[in-house]
Amino acid sequence: MDNTMSHSIEKLLEEFKQGTISHEEIIRELNGIAKLPFAQVDIARQKRTGQAECVFGDGKNADQIIAITSKLYQQKQPILVTRVDASKGAECCRHLSYLSYDPLGRTLSWIPQSPAKTTNRVAVICAGTSDLFVARECITTLTVNRHVPATHFDIGVAGLHRLLNALPAIQTYDVLIVIAGMEGALPSVIAGLCAQPIIAVPTSIGYGAHQNGITTLHAMLSSCASGLTVVNIDNGYGAACAAVRFLDKL
Amino acid sequence: MDNTMSHSIEKLLEEFKQGTISHEEIIRELNGIAKLPFAQVDIARQKRTGQAECVFGDGKNADQIIAITSKLYQQKQPILVTRVDASKGAECCRHLSYLSYDPLGRTLSWIPQSPAKTTNRVAVICAGTSDLFVARECITTLTVNRHVPATHFDIGVAGLHRLLNALPAIQTYDVLIVIAGMEGALPSVIAGLCAQPIIAVPTSIGYGAHQNGITTLHAMLSSCASGLTVVNIDNGYGAACAAVRFLDKL
Amino acid sequence: MDNTMSHSIEKLLEEFKQGTISHEEIIRELNGIAKLPFAQVDIARQKRTGQAECVFGDGKNADQIIAITSKLYQQKQPILVTRVDASKGAECCRHLSYLSYDPLGRTLSWIPQSPAKTTNRVAVICAGTSDLFVARECITTLTVNRHVPATHFDIGVAGLHRLLNALPAIQTYDVLIVIAGMEGALPSVIAGLCAQPIIAVPTSIGYGAHQNGITTLHAMLSSCASGLTVVNIDNGYGAACAAVRFLDKL
Amino acid sequence: MDNTMSHSIEKLLEEFKQGTISHEEIIRELNGIAKLPFAQVDIARQKRTGQAECVFGDGKNADQIIAITSKLYQQKQPILVTRVDASKGAECCRHLSYLSYDPLGRTLSWIPQSPAKTTNRVAVICAGTSDLFVARECITTLTVNRHVPATHFDIGVAGLHRLLNALPAIQTYDVLIVIAGMEGALPSVIAGLCAQPIIAVPTSIGYGAHQNGITTLHAMLSSCASGLTVVNIDNGYGAACAAVRFLDKL
Amino acid sequence: MDNTMSHSIEKLLEEFKQGTISHEEIIRELNGIAKLPFAQVDIARQKRTGQAECVFGDGKNADQIIAITSKLYQQKQPILVTRVDASKGAECCRHLSYLSYDPLGRTLSWIPQSPAKTTNRVAVICAGTSDLFVARECITTLTVNRHVPATHFDIGVAGLHRLLNALPAIQTYDVLIVIAGMEGALPSVIAGLCAQPIIAVPTSIGYGAHQNGITTLHAMLSSCASGLTVVNIDNGYGAACAAVRFLDKL
Amino acid sequence: MDNTMSHSIEKLLEEFKQGTISHEEIIRELNGIAKLPFAQVDIARQKRTGQAECVFGDGKNADQIIAITSKLYQQKQPILVTRVDASKGAECCRHLSYLSYDPLGRTLSWIPQSPAKTTNRVAVICAGTSDLFVARECITTLTVNRHVPATHFDIGVAGLHRLLNALPAIQTYDVLIVIAGMEGALPSVIAGLCAQPIIAVPTSIGYGAHQNGITTLHAMLSSCASGLTVVNIDNGYGAACAAVRFLDKL
Amino acid sequence: MDNTMSHSIEKLLEEFKQGTISHEEIIRELNGIAKLPFAQVDIARQKRTGQAECVFGDGKNADQIIAITSKLYQQKQPILVTRVDASKGAECCRHLSYLSYDPLGRTLSWIPQSPAKTTNRVAVICAGTSDLFVARECITTLTVNRHVPATHFDIGVAGLHRLLNALPAIQTYDVLIVIAGMEGALPSVIAGLCAQPIIAVPTSIGYGAHQNGITTLHAMLSSCASGLTVVNIDNGYGAACAAVRFLDKL
Amino acid sequence: MDNTMSHSIEKLLEEFKQGTISHEEIIRELNGIAKLPFAQVDIARQKRTGQAECVFGDGKNADQIIAITSKLYQQKQPILVTRVDASKGAECCRHLSYLSYDPLGRTLSWIPQSPAKTTNRVAVICAGTSDLFVARECITTLTVNRHVPATHFDIGVAGLHRLLNALPAIQTYDVLIVIAGMEGALPSVIAGLCAQPIIAVPTSIGYGAHQNGITTLHAMLSSCASGLTVVNIDNGYGAACAAVRFLDKL
Repeated sequence: MDNTMSHSIEKLLEEFKQGTISHEEIIRELNGIAKLPFAQVDIARQKRTGQAECVFGDGKNADQIIAITSKLYQQKQPILVTRVDASKGAECCRHLSYLSYDPLGRTLSWIPQSPAKTTNRVAVICAGTSDLFVARECITTLTVNRHVPATHFDIGVAGLHRLLNALPAIQTYDVLIVIAGMEGALPSVIAGLCAQPIIAVPTSIGYGAHQNGITTLHAMLSSCASGLTVVNIDNGYGAACAAVRFLDKL
Repeated sequence: MDNTMSHSIEKLLEEFKQGTISHEEIIRELNGIAKLPFAQVDIARQKRTGQAECVFGDGKNADQIIAITSKLYQQKQPILVTRVDASKGAECCRHLSYLSYDPLGRTLSWIPQSPAKTTNRVAVICAGTSDLFVARECITTLTVNRHVPATHFDIGVAGLHRLLNALPAIQTYDVLIVIAGMEGALPSVIAGLCAQPIIAVPTSIGYGAHQNGITTLHAMLSSCASGLTVVNIDNGYGAACAAVRFLDKL
Repeated sequence: MDNTMSHSIEKLLEEFKQGTISHEEIIRELNGIAKLPFAQVDIARQKRTGQAECVFGDGKNADQIIAITSKLYQQKQPILVTRVDASKGAECCRHLSYLSYDPLGRTLSWIPQSPAKTTNRVAVICAGTSDLFVARECITTLTVNRHVPATHFDIGVAGLHRLLNALPAIQTYDVLIVIAGMEGALPSVIAGLCAQPIIAVPTSIGYGAHQNGITTLHAMLSSCASGLTVVNIDNGYGAACAAVRFLDKL
Repeated sequence: MDNTMSHSIEKLLEEFKQGTISHEEIIRELNGIAKLPFAQVDIARQKRTGQAECVFGDGKNADQIIAITSKLYQQKQPILVTRVDASKGAECCRHLSYLSYDPLGRTLSWIPQSPAKTTNRVAVICAGTSDLFVARECITTLTVNRHVPATHFDIGVAGLHRLLNALPAIQTYDVLIVIAGMEGALPSVIAGLCAQPIIAVPTSIGYGAHQNGITTLHAMLSSCASGLTVVNIDNGYGAACAAVRFLDKL
Repeated sequence: MDNTMSHSIEKLLEEFKQGTISHEEIIRELNGIAKLPFAQVDIARQKRTGQAECVFGDGKNADQIIAITSKLYQQKQPILVTRVDASKGAECCRHLSYLSYDPLGRTLSWIPQSPAKTTNRVAVICAGTSDLFVARECITTLTVNRHVPATHFDIGVAGLHRLLNALPAIQTYDVLIVIAGMEGALPSVIAGLCAQPIIAVPTSIGYGAHQNGITTLHAMLSSCASGLTVVNIDNGYGAACAAVRFLDKL
Repeated sequence: MDNTMSHSIEKLLEEFKQGTISHEEIIRELNGIAKLPFAQVDIARQKRTGQAECVFGDGKNADQIIAITSKLYQQKQPILVTRVDASKGAECCRHLSYLSYDPLGRTLSWIPQSPAKTTNRVAVICAGTSDLFVARECITTLTVNRHVPATHFDIGVAGLHRLLNALPAIQTYDVLIVIAGMEGALPSVIAGLCAQPIIAVPTSIGYGAHQNGITTLHAMLSSCASGLTVVNIDNGYGAACAAVRFLDKL
Repeated sequence: MDNTMSHSIEKLLEEFKQGTISHEEIIRELNGIAKLPFAQVDIARQKRTGQAECVFGDGKNADQIIAITSKLYQQKQPILVTRVDASKGAECCRHLSYLSYDPLGRTLSWIPQSPAKTTNRVAVICAGTSDLFVARECITTLTVNRHVPATHFDIGVAGLHRLLNALPAIQTYDVLIVIAGMEGALPSVIAGLCAQPIIAVPTSIGYGAHQNGITTLHAMLSSCASGLTVVNIDNGYGAACAAVRFLDKL
Repeated sequence: MDNTMSHSIEKLLEEFKQGTISHEEIIRELNGIAKLPFAQVDIARQKRTGQAECVFGDGKNADQIIAITSKLYQQKQPILVTRVDASKGAECCRHLSYLSYDPLGRTLSWIPQSPAKTTNRVAVICAGTSDLFVARECITTLTVNRHVPATHFDIGVAGLHRLLNALPAIQTYDVLIVIAGMEGALPSVIAGLCAQPIIAVPTSIGYGAHQNGITTLHAMLSSCASGLTVVNIDNGYGAACAAVRFLDKL
């Protein structure tokens, strides 16, 4: 794995003491910040945690997004902006032609030319067609981090044969991301049948007692199948990042 | 079915007008109440709704339970008291030797000698061993109403093969009561594989995000499998009553 | 009842071993899936669980709905799409002229020519005029499954005489679907007066402490009347499916 | 009504200016406080708001309760302490022999000899036997305030005939206090049949989705019957005080 | 008071038996229903419970509202429709010129010419200017029921002197309706200073931890001042009805 | 500090008795109210509590805001209106040209010419760029009260080095306002490193389990770092007022 | 103020580079940790944040508390352990005779001999007698930090005159800690009358809709009075720490 | 990795067809169930999912636990029973002397003699001393699965230097389990500094707004640091299982 933080604080102290690195270098090393009037872009994020910096688009206007992504593009870093609605996405693409916008997953992204690190080692599995918007965010995030996922869609537990059919393939991947709304039973069933790490993603698809996904989230956390981990509702991005942490360790 | 309310209000008015029934009779017919200083025992309940009157034991002391069950015993009605803790149960059995107490299901009951109406037409299915206390309340309620259930225990989705194994038998019953705690996925999976009426019972077994069963309850209500109905948390009694309503109609 | 799953897994294994069915046949039998790029349409659903396949329209765009319903129409299966807003409904009807759209119940449907299985055996009962949109979804679902319901509207408990007036008729049906918003008292009152299976549907009609129906839902689940079963908020579709499971058993 | 605050602030200012009352008198008049090291007993409460001062026993130890009630007894004011458990109650009665303890309603009280203001003008109505502990707190509070209530117990909606039977009597009172747990439907049904002021009291009797009375409370607040008012869960004391405010106005 | 239900069920039975009233008359008396295809208008409501029938406008379209109010107008009954948005209100007024629409309180109403029953016996008190929309619904409902209220606006506890200033006037009314959002402290403070019946109305004005009024509602229910009663969030209509029940008793 | 209430009630009583102040003067002193038909503007607020009167714009229309701010402007008091959307803001500015509108912080304000009381004694610290709208409301409120804040933006804990970098500066201020959404960890970390008073402001930025800021709010209240105080979600205004209370005491 | 962190990280780096402090010294300075097998006692806490280290007693057994407090006693640091039940408290006092236990506030403490920093600059104000346990924790924490508070108990808004009476005194303190349960209105009323910093503490005293203090907490956060800050439910300790942060700045 | 399910369903079908395995063998292979009257012990769990079967002790009595663990011991499988209170633990140990009970982590376990698979590849990190009971359950589960963890206790964010001190060591492990109560900020801070997979465990340690851990859980799920995964409250067992899924893949 080539992505861990290269120098721990103790090591930096030593090198600084011995003069191997200058005062400016230790400060820069610790900081890795590109300053904007309203933001401090974390350009050292990938180096430190192994994941591309991601911009949370919700609550930011197009001007702010354009300013931040420009900074990242100057550094030739991969770009990922999540939760971008269609009109903001269009405006950003008009200004920065290298960006591409995915209306289903609601992401803006730019991926530097470079070979994939892995292919078909992680699978994105989806219970229903209505959950696809979360799967799209997840797939884009994996791709930006250069892990090309396999996909299995629409295999929820209401028609168990669809899952059993896909099971032999599912058992071949190194890590599984399982996305489901409603009662969220799919990760439990898969976790009882498979030995890999499983990251469950609850979605906001449902109504009434479903409470915008809180029920799915809590049901997944209460799973009787052991060793399931969970991320926030609709958080396809976070699930992909968790998988990247794992894949980069293999 | 011999249990519907025998006279509608309109019919009673007619008969009363024509003198077929007296003033006292119409009042008694409408009422069916045995009065106690602190309660009005509904001795016509079974005649009206097809189910044995049941006493909710929680919040009543042993003296009150003894007084009420004695009234019912005088009428030779079947007796069922739910949510009775061990010490109250023992005290009641000391006073009324015909009562029997089930410590797991926490019920007091007395069943008149009479043949079962049905046998093995309803199944009580249980996801985990920890849910058995709810199953016991359910089985006792069915038995008091003279429907002898089949049972399948400990076949939760974490080990799907246990369910698939039992499936051929499960498909033979007329109505299914499916009891589960944790994420409550079992009724969804069964509802996707079986055509019968299914009554799902969430249990309070779990912790943390499970919130004493609210999560299981809401997950079952949000099921992606269609035609599932749900009763309150740990309500083995209510699920049995719903099944009785159905079985008496067959 | 002609709708149960015709072959259990064990039976299939036997036939497959004896060569009565081929490898392709056992796979097809187990699967019953029509594949689309983004979905796996469950064309064997009706055969397996006795209910017409239903498409959950929320979170799907018109193109996806058109693709899925076309697959079902090719199989001459009845079509039901729920939670479809007016503009999506209009677009689908423009492309597939055999579909009809109900703006109140928000459903798209197509029903093959075939006689009703039952008429007036199930009643759809509604507490208030504002709950009618749920009743419409319920009635359409019953009709697609070829059970023609009776209806009683606007008989909530605030004017008890309206209910008592309808009671003699209500007592004649085989199963009751009772829809109510606000405090949801109607199913409790009916369950105390009637012996049939009762499926209660809470609605999102109310405000403030009503919390979009959570209060009605929890109140129905806490009913002091026994044997009531409940489905999710506004789930007229699910209540109809539960009734179909029952009616097909009679 | 002889209980309103006898002097408004403006009037007091005038009298003080004119010397009709002294500096000490205006301060005492405004205050009406008996000081203890840990409390300021509101001995003018009854004069100001028409209700006897009540001590909330929860969170106070026996010593504190004894000190406060002694102060009130010196003033010959009626005494009411609510939420007192059995052991604290016994300890207080040992020290102050004029106090009486009600184990069901969990109150300590002492009532000065004086004729009732009203008899049978207010009714305490109770849905189930398990709700009686709230009714007892309510009845004691009314009695301490010298309004003797009528009572109707165990007439919940699961057996509607019990309510219809009592209806003619219920329509004769001036104000109704209606106590119910579970789904809390009784006040709605009564409010649709009666014209008097109705104070609904939700109780903590129930389980699961009932959430210790929150569901009953919210259901009562969401009632489709108009003009219902509601107090806190198990708040028999508060309901009685609201009735006293009304009865003192008649 | 001339508004109670004139005949109890028992009395009706007697008269019917003796032939004083005919079969049609007893049915009509019990029913008081004007039937529409989608609704059963409760034209006997005022006679039975002393309050004008009110139509809950939310969830009904303009056509339905027009049909129902026309029925009521034929009976020369006062008309009140609540929760009507501006466009629906305009459409109704175009068709039925006798209706008037209040955009702040969002009501449609028509009031028959008749003298007020009371004037300035009930006060509508409002903590803040943002709560006025609830006060308007309340005032209109009182007026439709012919009780003309006094009003005190914008006297919340953040500037206590405004309340103390109004206190002498407030102490003169027979019943107080106190409307507040945010933390809802005003009813508590008034209840500690006044002896009348007090109906507290929480509003949805606030944000964050205020949770659309749930916090205000629960705070009012938890008031340390005794004898406060509460209605649902923003329920100016319900508070007025509760006051009418009281005023008609005086 | 020159802002406390200059006369306590006791003192006023004395002066009034001695004739130093007239009847009108004591009333005016106690009141400080400018009356409008729908509001009572608290023009003595600043004198009494040291903070400029603020108008809560949500739920008020432009006409009401214009009427109230005009009253304040007549008194030459600083003006602050919060929660004003863009169209209302524009309408107010058209009518009252001295007002200025901030679209990010959604405030209308007018600040009398007068020197700042403090500069850089309070810092407004922000975890993420999406939280800036709350910071803007906070900064404007401080400025209206004549305290000019320092600012540190975008230094959330996901990139700890950004915080450590700013720490030396942060330790120099007298009071810290720390604004964060998501999990809200920033105030905890700062409180463990700094000795000043810290006011934490949770924001509504987040999704799913974040529940519009309730999670951030509760997390900040549960902080393991001691001496943190918290205001409502998105309440930049309230945090500024709390800081003003403190700064005016220094 | 002599309590800020004496060396920022940047300064430490400089001194370390110049050899003014050794490698061991910089590590010790940064750490200030006394290691135990199961804990790392933060003996530099007071130096860094101005507050005495406090041990959260809940979830720790007596052995662990004894081990930790012994470490602190060796450093002659003041000792405060909160949330200690009576039996644990007794056991600790048996082993370490210098500790004293307060059964009402549930604290263990030891205070080194040293003069108070301030007296009567902070006031602890309490709405009701049942809230005293929180006041005790608060007072002990202030005392351990050498700020001697003034106190005002039992002056809740249900008897407003008690508050108005105490107001002249209350207006003289530099910071107010206001403790209330139930609806928590007291801090709002005080904040409208006083100009000082106010820290509100909600308590768990109440029942039903009070939800163990969540309602009080949310009501205080929703206060219409500006500049109120809030700490967690029953968190007398945290309120005291917030006051210490302020008092040390004066 | 040697723990995946050795035969997929398709492969089994093939072998069965070709006679390589008998009818009994395919059934046994699919099942792997040891039957008890009340349970179906999943003895093939480890083979299928790579984790030792674990018994959830809550809701089971000592007799049931003894019966189930005996079955597992016969198979020489490692034994783990979680959530066992002290008295049940003692009773089980009396009967089955090979079991050992951990009172802090509340587990019963028996570990077959066999070398560890990994040592110091996974770290169990704990924010506070009060969270240790969760850490113990986690450590025991890892040990039963033959992964020996490193540990870092009491390094919560209130004293950030404790964390920074441990950081160099923490960056060397392959997977991190981070346990925290209160506001749960530790995993966020670590995730911003480290590149490994991180499993966050919220604990029930806290009070008031902490809501028994729901706040910690939701805060962790809302983390601004990317790639964090979360398990249920106090679920040390589940976090260990997730780590095992990962470690077995390396």
